[in-house]
Amino acid sequence: MHILLTNDDGYFAPGIQTLYEVLANHNGYDVSIVAPDGQRSATGHSITLFNPLFVTEHLLKESFKGFAISGTPSDCVKLAIQGELIPKPDLLISGINQGPNLGTDIFYSGTVSAAMEGVLLGIPSIAVSLASFEYQDFEPAAAYLAENLNLFLKLNHKGLINLNLPGKPRHEWQGLKVTRLGKAVYENIFEQRTDPRGRLYYWQSGTMTPDNESDTDLRAIQEDFISITPVHSDLTDYASLSFWTEVLAKK
Amino acid sequence: MHILLTNDDGYFAPGIQTLYEVLANHNGYDVSIVAPDGQRSATGHSITLFNPLFVTEHLLKESFKGFAISGTPSDCVKLAIQGELIPKPDLLISGINQGPNLGTDIFYSGTVSAAMEGVLLGIPSIAVSLASFEYQDFEPAAAYLAENLNLFLKLNHKGLINLNLPGKPRHEWQGLKVTRLGKAVYENIFEQRTDPRGRLYYWQSGTMTPDNESDTDLRAIQEDFISITPVHSDLTDYASLSFWTEVLAKK
Repeated sequence: MHILLTNDDGYFAPGIQTLYEVLANHNGYDVSIVAPDGQRSATGHSITLFNPLFVTEHLLKESFKGFAISGTPSDCVKLAIQGELIPKPDLLISGINQGPNLGTDIFYSGTVSAAMEGVLLGIPSIAVSLASFEYQDFEPAAAYLAENLNLFLKLNHKGLINLNLPGKPRHEWQGLKVTRLGKAVYENIFEQRTDPRGRLYYWQSGTMTPDNESDTDLRAIQEDFISITPVHSDLTDYASLSFWTEVLAKK
Repeated sequence: MHILLTNDDGYFAPGIQTLYEVLANHNGYDVSIVAPDGQRSATGHSITLFNPLFVTEHLLKESFKGFAISGTPSDCVKLAIQGELIPKPDLLISGINQGPNLGTDIFYSGTVSAAMEGVLLGIPSIAVSLASFEYQDFEPAAAYLAENLNLFLKLNHKGLINLNLPGKPRHEWQGLKVTRLGKAVYENIFEQRTDPRGRLYYWQSGTMTPDNESDTDLRAIQEDFISITPVHSDLTDYASLSFWTEVLAKK
């Protein structure tokens, strides 16, 4: 099995490097890396149409290669597969992200969007995130994924697997929960500041409000569970289609 | 009714300016504009977390205001509504985009993502695109939207309306079709070139292959119909949820 790794924290981020170490060196998988050449968090599913993409090759072991790309996570996946930078992968894993990717926030996520790009190109895809911006030990999360990879691959469907792990030592994890995407709600989103020339600007931030729903990914992570969510790629609202057809037929 | 206009082609793009002219001046709606200060096509649902957002105010008539923002389309919607740049709108319209936003391509679209951000913030939202990169007359599309706005608002659901109009004179339009999102497939995606210093780079482009499905937005536009698609915001794959729960319970 040939695995493509990508992320949105950049090629040299500890999350993806630890995942490579665990999958390729400890577990013997064939692994290629095609990842952005720097931080691309919150770039969503953006792609680069108005600028060239430069590629820097890094050595990995044996015949598998690592490439750092001057674009977005989705550019990386497209260039890897459609641009044939690497042999066609059997599996794409995006991550391990530093920070959660939960609920409606996945629309903003470069990590999840890279996995969605894999789905659009017909590759089974998993997005993996460590649900903390501070906790730095990615090894337990990488080991957990490696241990359960075959189990997760049996879940194959037409979408992606969104996996979030507690940003805590493994003995504090409460187990695995299958969840739906919750609604990420923030408070105090924009901070107003003044630049050295006296011009007003806004800085986007905000604190997430706790989720009170019982079955969401947000709630699972609040309670230190591992959250796994099936995510699909068809944004058509089929429930509305027939009603719309009826109303608009009168037109 | 107070309408917020945004887009991804930038504040001064003819599509949004024509739409403002038709909605505010010809039809008397209260309209605010909060749009990027330049071209932001294909930025998807990206948001700006690591840079400040600057705001330039432009005069519109009476008490409604226009703001050009140094960020993405989704930043504009968040800043307009969560940052309270303008009074809370009753409706968000994103566009009129120069170029189609159809099928799986809507993941990349700044235009559709801005409308999706509206949905996430509880505002009824419409994304409007003129399905040509060359045809420059936005007036018929803007007039069509104004004429049918009340009808479209009756379709209210929890998602957004994705509207694409043929990039042709109105007498060539074949009517309105309610569609599902198709699968946008491209050929010859990456062109390899060499820069003046001899470095290899890739430029992303590609030509879309025709869609043979009968009920998609892609097909409707191929046949010069107006396409209207109900788009939802919940990426959870509920069909897989119970199966996953069963499989993973054994773990």
